[in-house]
Amino acid sequence: MSAKGRLYGVGVGPGDPELLTIKALRLIQSVPVIAYQSATDKESIARAIASCYFTGTQIEVPFHLPRALEPEKAKEIYDKEVEPIAQHLAAGRDVVVLCEGDPFFYGSFMYVFTRLSEQYQTEVVPGVSSLMACPVSLGVPFTYYNDILTVLPAPLPAEELTTQLLTTDAAAIMKLGRHFTKVRDILHQLGLASRALYIERATMAQQRIVPLDEVNPAEVPYFAMIVIPSKNRL
Amino acid sequence: MSAKGRLYGVGVGPGDPELLTIKALRLIQSVPVIAYQSATDKESIARAIASCYFTGTQIEVPFHLPRALEPEKAKEIYDKEVEPIAQHLAAGRDVVVLCEGDPFFYGSFMYVFTRLSEQYQTEVVPGVSSLMACPVSLGVPFTYYNDILTVLPAPLPAEELTTQLLTTDAAAIMKLGRHFTKVRDILHQLGLASRALYIERATMAQQRIVPLDEVNPAEVPYFAMIVIPSKNRL
Repeated sequence: MSAKGRLYGVGVGPGDPELLTIKALRLIQSVPVIAYQSATDKESIARAIASCYFTGTQIEVPFHLPRALEPEKAKEIYDKEVEPIAQHLAAGRDVVVLCEGDPFFYGSFMYVFTRLSEQYQTEVVPGVSSLMACPVSLGVPFTYYNDILTVLPAPLPAEELTTQLLTTDAAAIMKLGRHFTKVRDILHQLGLASRALYIERATMAQQRIVPLDEVNPAEVPYFAMIVIPSKNRL
Repeated sequence: MSAKGRLYGVGVGPGDPELLTIKALRLIQSVPVIAYQSATDKESIARAIASCYFTGTQIEVPFHLPRALEPEKAKEIYDKEVEPIAQHLAAGRDVVVLCEGDPFFYGSFMYVFTRLSEQYQTEVVPGVSSLMACPVSLGVPFTYYNDILTVLPAPLPAEELTTQLLTTDAAAIMKLGRHFTKVRDILHQLGLASRALYIERATMAQQRIVPLDEVNPAEVPYFAMIVIPSKNRL
């Protein structure tokens, strides 16, 4: 009977392959199996970031955990999608699951973790999040000293976004996509538009920084962020 | 006349030297001058994290930007403390400034950046923040899907902390130190104590995880965090 394999949830950072950690690189190059989220019709972003480090002899396991499903439906699909990973672990093979950004920060790895970490020895490796990469790419210090920072997913209702933005020092609004116009209008209403900075695909080759009012709402990707840096300076 | 040097603000991550990025490692090993924050009587944390990668022939430039000063006094001191870095840059030497965690996320590098980035070519490299490292070290998925996340410095007034904690899904309370008791009491009042997780010096050799009610308030370091993960699961 062979020992079970180990599960590694590895943050691969925001996009630039040089923003992987030394630990992520070591683990990616040491395992026989690499898994990653991949929508059926799209290239996996996590794979695109890290594949330059693959050894060339590794087994690849794509999985797909679609969002915005009914909870019951999602559970059923997620259970099924993680099954191939579990089979490699049960057969004694170590598996790295690549995670865009950081594994526990709005990442789909959490659905793998909650299903497998009790049965299999699991280690998670934090990564550089887009929350840090976007302000850096924009060239703007984000939070100082005793600032309050609020991270807001754009799909939230307008009232909730407004309330939160009125009571914080700095904010990041994530997952913009088709919610861009709603967010832009709120920022204008609150007098925050002049401080708000828009960025797409930070640190990737396709990175774009666009003035807020020049963004085409029809072309805003999911991986776009609006950063409202703190006003405090010294 | 020689060209001016380049300034690099480099995040070195939360503590484990393996959590530096590949880019941070490359830059640290390529420059003649390395600067870091260092209180007069203490070892520099940023230096302790990254010094295993120094080449052995580099010039080291400690500086000290003390906190909690009157703004006017701070400006005067900060201007003076960054002067040695400026002199190396003016003389054509590239300088890496090591930054704990991420440079633009509650970091003292921002005071260097605001003083030197207009005069000298500057590049900032994001790093793994304690905001990501603490939940990972605690083994707890932090934020899901459309969660609101609020980052709260513990020195804030109790009323402000209470209001913010009542209106968020997940929270991180940083810079605990002597503010621990105030924060713990608020968490009990709000019924959040059972969800709150305490960690000191995440990913460092001295990392400690302690149940909230067993923490000795007299011994809480500045680099301690309370993480309140989201309740959402799937």
